[in-house]
Order: sequence, then C-alpha cells, then structure tokens
Amino acid sequence: MKSRDVLKSNWRAITNTDREKGIEKPEVEKTCEGVILLPKFDLGHKSFFQTIKERKSIRRFSNEALSLKELSFLLWTSYGVRKYVETRKVVFRTVPSAGATHPFDVYVMVFNVKGLDAGIYRYSGLKHGLCKVKLGDFRKSIVDATLGQKFVRESAVVFVLVAVPYRTEWKYKQESYKTIAIDAGHVCQNIYLASTSIDCGTCAIAAYDQEKMDGLIGVDGNEEFVVYFAPIGKLT
Amino acid sequence: MKSRDVLKSNWRAITNTDREKGIEKPEVEKTCEGVILLPKFDLGHKSFFQTIKERKSIRRFSNEALSLKELSFLLWTSYGVRKYVETRKVVFRTVPSAGATHPFDVYVMVFNVKGLDAGIYRYSGLKHGLCKVKLGDFRKSIVDATLGQKFVRESAVVFVLVAVPYRTEWKYKQESYKTIAIDAGHVCQNIYLASTSIDCGTCAIAAYDQEKMDGLIGVDGNEEFVVYFAPIGKLT
Repeated sequence: MKSRDVLKSNWRAITNTDREKGIEKPEVEKTCEGVILLPKFDLGHKSFFQTIKERKSIRRFSNEALSLKELSFLLWTSYGVRKYVETRKVVFRTVPSAGATHPFDVYVMVFNVKGLDAGIYRYSGLKHGLCKVKLGDFRKSIVDATLGQKFVRESAVVFVLVAVPYRTEWKYKQESYKTIAIDAGHVCQNIYLASTSIDCGTCAIAAYDQEKMDGLIGVDGNEEFVVYFAPIGKLT
Repeated sequence: MKSRDVLKSNWRAITNTDREKGIEKPEVEKTCEGVILLPKFDLGHKSFFQTIKERKSIRRFSNEALSLKELSFLLWTSYGVRKYVETRKVVFRTVPSAGATHPFDVYVMVFNVKGLDAGIYRYSGLKHGLCKVKLGDFRKSIVDATLGQKFVRESAVVFVLVAVPYRTEWKYKQESYKTIAIDAGHVCQNIYLASTSIDCGTCAIAAYDQEKMDGLIGVDGNEEFVVYFAPIGKLT
C-alpha cells in the first residue's frame, strides 16, 4: 500500500475528476457558528533571517501562558486567509497549496492560554476566530495518543492539522495524497517560524495513534482525519 | 496504490528497520568534489510578519539576474546546515525533518545568476557550496518536463528537491513516504519565504513528468528522484 510511488508524479493520469464532471466544489472550511473572534496583534517584528537562524525543534516549554494576541498571531501566520473569492469558493492563505485547495481544518487544543477555557477549538480562517468543539483538559489523552511523548502536555497549545482530503481529490484525485502531505509541511514550517519569531517553540509530531487522535479531536477518521500536529509553548 | 491511507499514521507497525538491524546509517548528503563555495551574505532583514504577509505564488519574473549572494542566501535559508554531528552522521538544517533524516539533495538549475555558468548544480549544505553536475541551457527541457508550464523558463534559478528515500526508510520504513512529502513542504515553505524576504518570488510545482525530470537532473528514478521544485526569480 505504501511505497515510493506515492512520492512520484503521474499527473497525466488524472482524468475524469469530480471537478470536470461539474460536481460542486466542496466548502473551503467547515461552517463555524458562535465564533470567538481573535484579537488584532502587532507581533513578529524579528527579521526573517534571524527567525530562520534561531528555529530549532523545542521539546521543553515554560509554564507561562500564551496570550490571546499571541494565539491570534500564530494562527493567522500559520493558516490565515489573505483573500477569499466567494463567488468561486477560492481561498488564499498564508501558505501555498496544490491548486489552492487547502485541505486542512486546523484544530487548536488549548492547555494554557490567558482568557480561553481549556479544550478543543477549530480555527476559522474566514472569520479569524475559534469555534468551540469541546471543553476539558485533554493533556493526559494526548500523551496517550502520541505513544507517550510526555513533552506534549507541557505545551500551551497544540495545533492539529486535520485533512479533509476530498477538497483536493475533487481536483487531483489520486495525486492528492502527496500534495496534501506537502501542504502539511508548508503549514508546519510556518508554525515553526511564527513560534520562533515570538520566542515560542514547537516540535511537530508525525508519530501517533491514528484512531486515538481522531477520536480525541472528534473527526470520523475517513472524510476527516489528523495528519500532523505541533505543540507550542514559550521557551524556558 | 495511492490512497488516503498514505496520510495516516501507523507508527507502531514500524518493525525490524535497517537501523535496528545495525546496518550503517546512510550518508547525510552526496559527496561533493570540486565545490564552488558560496559567498557570505547580509540579507533577509525584512520582518517575519511582513514576509508572511507579502508571500504569494509568483509566476511572472523580471529578467534581472540573481547575484551569487542572493543564491547563497536562498540556499542557506532553505536547506542550509546549522550543525553537523559527524560522529553520529546527524545533520541539523534550517528545516525540521522526521527523525532528522533530511531525505533531500537540493539541485539548482541555473538560468540567470551573475558569475555562474548556466547549468545544473547540486547544493552541499555541509560545505555551503555547489557541485557542478552539467553545464548548458535547460530552459526548453524543463518547460517540456513540467507539462508545458512556460513561466518556469523566465525564472533565474530552479531549486529541485530530489528525494533519497533510503535516508528515511533506514529509520522509518513504510512510514517514510508521508514524512518525506511533509519534509518537502517544510523546505518549500522556506523557499517561498526566503524569496519573499529579498523581493523575489516563486511558485512551486508538483505537476511534472517524472521520467523527464529525473532524466534532466540525472538521477536514477528509484534510489533518487525528483519530488517537488520551485522556480525563483526577481519580481517584475
């Protein structure tokens, strides 16, 4: 099932897509009711070069809370919407994506953010806000779902990339899986750099229990499932 | 062969890896003889936030040449070496990579760089220099290999990510294909941002003819093959 072929391009073999059949384009993100709007920020003044130079994987965090402004900054820079063309359902974000299909919903697991109850939220880039999924302290569950990676529970928030593969399949069919994984890398690199630029740190995680992570976030594991995530916290 | 399962984690199924069997770790990059050292640079002072805000996909370039300093900056920020632990053959770069396996060699197709003959080079992060692969003008060939994407020939350079999958398979076997694609995204996001920070632009390409691209770069298509690439040029 999994082989090197996944990484090779066979672009000419894409035929008879749902897009070509005239099937309606899927929504760019899940509908968000009762949105908690995120505040304006004035952050990220560190130079690009300095940010790149300082970036490294961080697995130790201080117990200081993130502010809502910092969370707002991290979400906008990682997956925010730069432009939305509603008539064509095309969204442009702070990352590139194959055919501008942007296959992710970003979920935020909140452990320690000033002014926000602990729990799981979904980020709406269109509204630049959060939709509540469920409240609670999920630190124990996520350590279990990451095969015992204890450093995760010391973070302030975890950004979880949930793939909605049909958004890309609609246009690119079987070539979508490679590009969705590449797109996860685009987003995660922004998470690393955005964190570094405000003296936070992260270490992304690809080693996890698929069913437990999907269950924790509350997605079905087929039409929507976790692909990659990043616990973020302040530097010690 | 290609399905959504590629994107799912089945980390516990990794057993009996070459690493566990005591097989020697592969080299971190191809040996580079007769290296052309890249110059020091003092670039990338734009703020991280401004860089993120300005980033977008660029398919129109001016015909101005890149300087060697700019090329040096773009390569270091995209895939440069921050630290090398020779005794353990572990390299730390300006991007994260699953298990620090860094599966790519970055090739540079030079069309228009002041002080550098047109042709194909391989980047050595360890030496921060270029190794000549072959000289010549490959603009026509790359348009053909990218299924006719003519904008590519107007760029000044193309950064080509060639995967050497065994570097990751040695440690993670069948889970490597997802993480290699993710890692390609990490690198490419740096290419986008580094370009933006010096008023260049790029638009990464995943749609290409695999055999033609591999043939053009001169890799075997199995142990080493092209996965993703980015034509870069100055803004118009």
